Amino acid sequence: MRTIIRNGTVATSADVFKADIQIINGVVTAISERIVPVEGDHVIEATDQYVFPGGIDVHTHLAFPGTVDDFESGTKAAASGGITSIINFTDPKKGQSVLDNLREWQEKAKPSFIDYGFHSIINECNERVLEEVPDLAEQGVTSIKLFMAYKDHLMVNDVEMYKLMKTAGEAGIITNVHAENGDVIDQLISDALSKGNTTPYFHASTRPCLLEAEATGRALAIAEAANAPVYIVHVSCAEALQQVEQAKKRGVQAYAETCPQYLVLDSSYLAKPFEESAKYVCSPPLRDKSNQTVLWNGLASGLISTVASDHSSIPFEGGKALGRDNFAKIPNGCPGIEDIFSLIYHFGVHEGRISLQKFVEITSSAPAKLFGLYPKKGTIAIGSDADLVVLDPRLSRVISKNTQSQSTDYNLYEGTKVQGVITYVLSRGEELVQEGRFLGKPGRGEFLHRKRFKKI
Amino acid sequence: MRTIIRNGTVATSADVFKADIQIINGVVTAISERIVPVEGDHVIEATDQYVFPGGIDVHTHLAFPGTVDDFESGTKAAASGGITSIINFTDPKKGQSVLDNLREWQEKAKPSFIDYGFHSIINECNERVLEEVPDLAEQGVTSIKLFMAYKDHLMVNDVEMYKLMKTAGEAGIITNVHAENGDVIDQLISDALSKGNTTPYFHASTRPCLLEAEATGRALAIAEAANAPVYIVHVSCAEALQQVEQAKKRGVQAYAETCPQYLVLDSSYLAKPFEESAKYVCSPPLRDKSNQTVLWNGLASGLISTVASDHSSIPFEGGKALGRDNFAKIPNGCPGIEDIFSLIYHFGVHEGRISLQKFVEITSSAPAKLFGLYPKKGTIAIGSDADLVVLDPRLSRVISKNTQSQSTDYNLYEGTKVQGVITYVLSRGEELVQEGRFLGKPGRGEFLHRKRFKKI
Amino acid sequence: MRTIIRNGTVATSADVFKADIQIINGVVTAISERIVPVEGDHVIEATDQYVFPGGIDVHTHLAFPGTVDDFESGTKAAASGGITSIINFTDPKKGQSVLDNLREWQEKAKPSFIDYGFHSIINECNERVLEEVPDLAEQGVTSIKLFMAYKDHLMVNDVEMYKLMKTAGEAGIITNVHAENGDVIDQLISDALSKGNTTPYFHASTRPCLLEAEATGRALAIAEAANAPVYIVHVSCAEALQQVEQAKKRGVQAYAETCPQYLVLDSSYLAKPFEESAKYVCSPPLRDKSNQTVLWNGLASGLISTVASDHSSIPFEGGKALGRDNFAKIPNGCPGIEDIFSLIYHFGVHEGRISLQKFVEITSSAPAKLFGLYPKKGTIAIGSDADLVVLDPRLSRVISKNTQSQSTDYNLYEGTKVQGVITYVLSRGEELVQEGRFLGKPGRGEFLHRKRFKKI
Amino acid sequence: MRTIIRNGTVATSADVFKADIQIINGVVTAISERIVPVEGDHVIEATDQYVFPGGIDVHTHLAFPGTVDDFESGTKAAASGGITSIINFTDPKKGQSVLDNLREWQEKAKPSFIDYGFHSIINECNERVLEEVPDLAEQGVTSIKLFMAYKDHLMVNDVEMYKLMKTAGEAGIITNVHAENGDVIDQLISDALSKGNTTPYFHASTRPCLLEAEATGRALAIAEAANAPVYIVHVSCAEALQQVEQAKKRGVQAYAETCPQYLVLDSSYLAKPFEESAKYVCSPPLRDKSNQTVLWNGLASGLISTVASDHSSIPFEGGKALGRDNFAKIPNGCPGIEDIFSLIYHFGVHEGRISLQKFVEITSSAPAKLFGLYPKKGTIAIGSDADLVVLDPRLSRVISKNTQSQSTDYNLYEGTKVQGVITYVLSRGEELVQEGRFLGKPGRGEFLHRKRFKKI
Repeated sequence: MRTIIRNGTVATSADVFKADIQIINGVVTAISERIVPVEGDHVIEATDQYVFPGGIDVHTHLAFPGTVDDFESGTKAAASGGITSIINFTDPKKGQSVLDNLREWQEKAKPSFIDYGFHSIINECNERVLEEVPDLAEQGVTSIKLFMAYKDHLMVNDVEMYKLMKTAGEAGIITNVHAENGDVIDQLISDALSKGNTTPYFHASTRPCLLEAEATGRALAIAEAANAPVYIVHVSCAEALQQVEQAKKRGVQAYAETCPQYLVLDSSYLAKPFEESAKYVCSPPLRDKSNQTVLWNGLASGLISTVASDHSSIPFEGGKALGRDNFAKIPNGCPGIEDIFSLIYHFGVHEGRISLQKFVEITSSAPAKLFGLYPKKGTIAIGSDADLVVLDPRLSRVISKNTQSQSTDYNLYEGTKVQGVITYVLSRGEELVQEGRFLGKPGRGEFLHRKRFKKI
Repeated sequence: MRTIIRNGTVATSADVFKADIQIINGVVTAISERIVPVEGDHVIEATDQYVFPGGIDVHTHLAFPGTVDDFESGTKAAASGGITSIINFTDPKKGQSVLDNLREWQEKAKPSFIDYGFHSIINECNERVLEEVPDLAEQGVTSIKLFMAYKDHLMVNDVEMYKLMKTAGEAGIITNVHAENGDVIDQLISDALSKGNTTPYFHASTRPCLLEAEATGRALAIAEAANAPVYIVHVSCAEALQQVEQAKKRGVQAYAETCPQYLVLDSSYLAKPFEESAKYVCSPPLRDKSNQTVLWNGLASGLISTVASDHSSIPFEGGKALGRDNFAKIPNGCPGIEDIFSLIYHFGVHEGRISLQKFVEITSSAPAKLFGLYPKKGTIAIGSDADLVVLDPRLSRVISKNTQSQSTDYNLYEGTKVQGVITYVLSRGEELVQEGRFLGKPGRGEFLHRKRFKKI
Repeated sequence: MRTIIRNGTVATSADVFKADIQIINGVVTAISERIVPVEGDHVIEATDQYVFPGGIDVHTHLAFPGTVDDFESGTKAAASGGITSIINFTDPKKGQSVLDNLREWQEKAKPSFIDYGFHSIINECNERVLEEVPDLAEQGVTSIKLFMAYKDHLMVNDVEMYKLMKTAGEAGIITNVHAENGDVIDQLISDALSKGNTTPYFHASTRPCLLEAEATGRALAIAEAANAPVYIVHVSCAEALQQVEQAKKRGVQAYAETCPQYLVLDSSYLAKPFEESAKYVCSPPLRDKSNQTVLWNGLASGLISTVASDHSSIPFEGGKALGRDNFAKIPNGCPGIEDIFSLIYHFGVHEGRISLQKFVEITSSAPAKLFGLYPKKGTIAIGSDADLVVLDPRLSRVISKNTQSQSTDYNLYEGTKVQGVITYVLSRGEELVQEGRFLGKPGRGEFLHRKRFKKI
Repeated sequence: MRTIIRNGTVATSADVFKADIQIINGVVTAISERIVPVEGDHVIEATDQYVFPGGIDVHTHLAFPGTVDDFESGTKAAASGGITSIINFTDPKKGQSVLDNLREWQEKAKPSFIDYGFHSIINECNERVLEEVPDLAEQGVTSIKLFMAYKDHLMVNDVEMYKLMKTAGEAGIITNVHAENGDVIDQLISDALSKGNTTPYFHASTRPCLLEAEATGRALAIAEAANAPVYIVHVSCAEALQQVEQAKKRGVQAYAETCPQYLVLDSSYLAKPFEESAKYVCSPPLRDKSNQTVLWNGLASGLISTVASDHSSIPFEGGKALGRDNFAKIPNGCPGIEDIFSLIYHFGVHEGRISLQKFVEITSSAPAKLFGLYPKKGTIAIGSDADLVVLDPRLSRVISKNTQSQSTDYNLYEGTKVQGVITYVLSRGEELVQEGRFLGKPGRGEFLHRKRFKKI
């Protein structure tokens, strides 16, 4: 069977043009002024609508302890919102083989509606782990994730980071880094609590920009010493971004990601009553509003390569509520996988901060290229998977927990009206969303065996 | 008639993929996994070759006084080298209507083999000129060019620049600026000559980076005050580029161009005997070699948007030779239109400094977007002109004046071996180069009525 | 006769210590733990008070057209406020010999209460002027002043600036520069007026930081090309200061001055009703408050070398009032010679922004060293002139036009309470202020034949 | 008894002037044009010679394990070379009370010829240590030293650094930091050795500027988080200095020190045969020569506050020689206490890089002010200790191990001719050097009970 998307405005990271798209066996096989349907063709009308490459969310925490979205609910939310591929984290226990852990995650991911890959979190460094890391690439997992915060269960120290980055880099594996100086932050938290400063507001003040910038600079220096590629996740502030800029100038293979929450929200949300503010607790914390412009400009100029959701669907009841008397007990993380595509389209393209091409680049092409998915994913080109989103720019919708697919009992953007409504979502040519209705089948998603890192 | 380019590796500024391309009426109408030729189709085999959008050289001085390339010889050289559109300068005399002068240039350009547009040089500022500038946009000339050097015949002062930029900006016209502090340079030249320093070496020392940077900073500040877009031509050094970087950070609509001579050559050429060194006299002058890396990095990071040739085909005999006893009498300018595409491919892509996509961006897409030619030119997409270059990366050639089409009696890159040989060049679907042979007909080129500037 | 200042706390730019000071023949001849007075000694008791070197105000416009302070009233105000030396500008007419003009100013200055030197304004550049500049140094005038604004009567262009700086530098003369891009500012003013924007508020908006920074960068680049020392007067904003910082890093002999009005006042004063706001019209204009911290930090770190008043005693009636319907007709300039020492002591030392030593450095030592007065002036050391200020830090006073000596019908700082009251002022050992009463005699001031510039 | 230094040229960090100096009871009590000696006065003739405040070397490792200079030989060398005060490190063992350890050092220091203070090294962080730190200030030890390298015996981690800085800062104690990322360096060393790279050259390559800069940035960030003053010892390179510059701009109470070896020597010494190169092994290592200018400029501009020797008198035989087969076994450190004053005078003042006043500032005034010794030490002013050095700028000498007092079997600067010979050294008015001869008595030096840190 052949699918034809007719008369849409096709957008890639380079071009915007009117064309028909032909899909055969889940792959784009022709882009043409006009493709005449014949009997049996499935035709999607996209007149006056955009046809985008599906969003690729490279920062998700589906099926993590304490969260309420597994791969089924999470990827349904993702697909509903225009995300057609994700890269989720694994979570090896200390002492556990990372390859064994990867196998567990391969199981967990089976109900997925969309294609998925994994970043392997590495939270210790020993002979075994250093031997396993190159094997990850063999398994199609060409990225690892290291933490500079969350002592005891996640954090690695500098020499561990150096060894892991070096080993990873030599194997064509890019290292994701959560860059906050966890050691000092833990002390600031302890100082704050000892003074009775227990509300969510102090979540932000105990994780200052200063310490995100310090850790960012350190990660970049270690990557430079190790001659390895590094990807700084969830950059939230000007100070940290400046470190990325300086490293890029020195020639470090450094890339940065930011998230919708840092682009659209700010630290004033943390000053609200606990019932509200607790929902907005993530790390790095929401920052002063002035950082938003810096981050948007960073995306526009290419200094920041990607946006990702850092989706962690921690519910309020039974989750966020645990920290009522102590902000440090609020589970960190925010849901976002469902609205990221919409939010970036609305606040980025619709409000004039970025072009359509830049939108495609940061939501799809750059993630695909950095994480070894390109050209299978990340563009609309001959031979690429027909992961496509049709969006009607003439329609608008209001974000609400009442209409969302993600499982949390709230939505960070409740009540926000966004221009642009997704009408179709295709994954390898298959309609997951059709005229706005969700049609997908769980378990149809496939594991993405990714290629090794290559400098872009 | 239909033309099909079969089995090439298509490159855009976003993507690289294998596909067939269908051309009807000079326009790309389909890009497809396979297009089955039927009788009457013209088929070009491009297996294992790249298919690029034709190069757009936005900085040419064809038919200028003292040069030996008119639009016929110049655009033949261009097309032979993979350039399928140019934007040439006009040269209104003081007191002359810029629209009248434009009409003269429309005549001069008639023998062109390829499509052409114009930047209107503005060398004075008065009521009449300020009234004419918006009319230029009506005429499809959506860029002007101002000089901060060459007193008396070209240079405008700061207030003139402000008024012209403001008027231009409001009309959707982008302003090209030649940024060197001509006032101080004239004095340095006079100081040098008075000390008997007359060789080409002193051409460089009297036009220091410092004074290019100063003028660049000034042009950017004036553009900022005028809230107008500005395009700094031929950026040659780190100091000037830093000014561009700072302006971009402030949000100025600032864009930068560099040229092959600054990327590939350096000031050591000016220390050679006069017969050699005189050929390399251009302004800004060739710089210390350390600037090359800075400029390549600037292209790779997006800080510099475009490469252009600044083609000025000044012959040695009867041209450069005039300055044997006085470097200040050497006509400034270098030929380059024929080899720019090759040089950037070779030193950029082949030697690993930039990706294929970036190559397309800086030689074609970005010039098209900045100067109102996109999407007619600058990409390979449905509905775009079939201005295409097929390049065989397996072949190499040696650059030489003996084999060139440009009319100068020398080639700056004499003897340089470059990887990649152009096999086909199409302009609006028409073969100008076929299996390496030039087939074009003079006069087939068309005037490019360009769109007004829009921020990219 | 011998004067002894007993038991004061002596402050230099290096040290703060308790000591007695012996003055003989107008010169400090001993600094000692205890100097036992003998009969005939004049003793000044300074217990618990500071003894500072007299302030040196290197930026004054006494006896300028349109101002109401001549050398008599102006230097009385200065001395009352702790200033014991000034460097005033001359004002050669175009075509007039600068040496002739200097002679006129020598006459005008005769009634001075304190010692004085001159900066020679140069407002044209021709053979005669270039010959006269070195002669200025012979006459003890080792600094000139150039303007990049005020076309027609003051402004020089870039090449004139280059020639003058080069000639000056070779003669050991430092060049003061008023750095604003006057050309573009004139156009912005004309744009504003043509829109009916006539209030003092638009004085600031038509002279943006951007154009001060641009001109500052240009002056510094030209000084660098000329290999000459340069002193940027009245730096008012972060953007301009950044240019100074970058030039210093490149090794340019660059120095910066700021003024109390930029440290203490801000652009909000220009938004007041005309009767108030007109008084605050000076150029560069008062800036956004955020610049104050940047300027104080610049003083503290040494990036800014000096503070000076830019004293221009333009009265409101018959002066500022002229611009009631057109801000461009408000004479630029503010009175300040009388309160500068107090203001810097209060907002600097008393409020903890700078140390006592830094206070001495910026008000006295650095001006003396930069302008060839050191060690005669600028410190308290053996052999130096006994130009001394005794200030009682325990007392305070309220600044008011009602109690001032300067002749304007207003005071910019009306009502400001400052800690620290001057009890004695000595000039070459002679008491001009004694227990707060003014005792000076007009005409006792001497011309300061200054030494040639030497890098400090 | 009274001592008079007659007719010298007195230099402070502010002033240079001719005067006589009167010393009574070890203190400067008068500075005067002329002090007439009476019978019983001790008169030192200093005509045409400079009189400087004695040098203060705040970075010495006398009596450290593996070194050959104890307090007797070391302070004799110091005094011979113009150093009249030192601050030496203590070396608490892990688990040992830092106060107990201090008492041991008080004993060790007894034979000292000159006055001495201590920085307390802190190499662990626990309840006891955090309680003891404020007590150090009570004991007159108002500085501690932390290491970011040398794991196991010296290094503290980030949270320990934060707690110690915070505790120290609140007690008015400034923290010295050795800033190198020891963790990663250890790994680079291990990588190098495993490849058979064992010569001293690899000492430098395994401790790159990058990792000094990273650690410097981290220490500054932690100091900022702790709101505590920090003093970065032995800054060796441009990259690290840039971190200091940025921190100062953010308002961090940050200060930097460099050492003669980084100003005068460079990494080419490490490429020599082992017998030579091993002597030059110190950490941070000697750097590329281009850093020298950056460091001198940093001193001239005030970005670097002090010079100190980092004196570690490790002998070649029995010391450096241990690393013949493995650079990592070469004890780190270089002797320098004896020549620092000479070297800075010669390469700084004599060769025109800094003024006399700046020389006094970096060798004496700034160390005194930063470390709570001012105004007792660090200047020539009424009431200050008569710690004075008389230097004859007309004489020169050649540095050699054959003529030195320090105990090492080599001198890093062997054969270097320096202008300026010390003729007298006074400590609290007592002649330690008289007409070039050493007269001091061991044990006359006194412990310096220093004041708490106050921002300068």
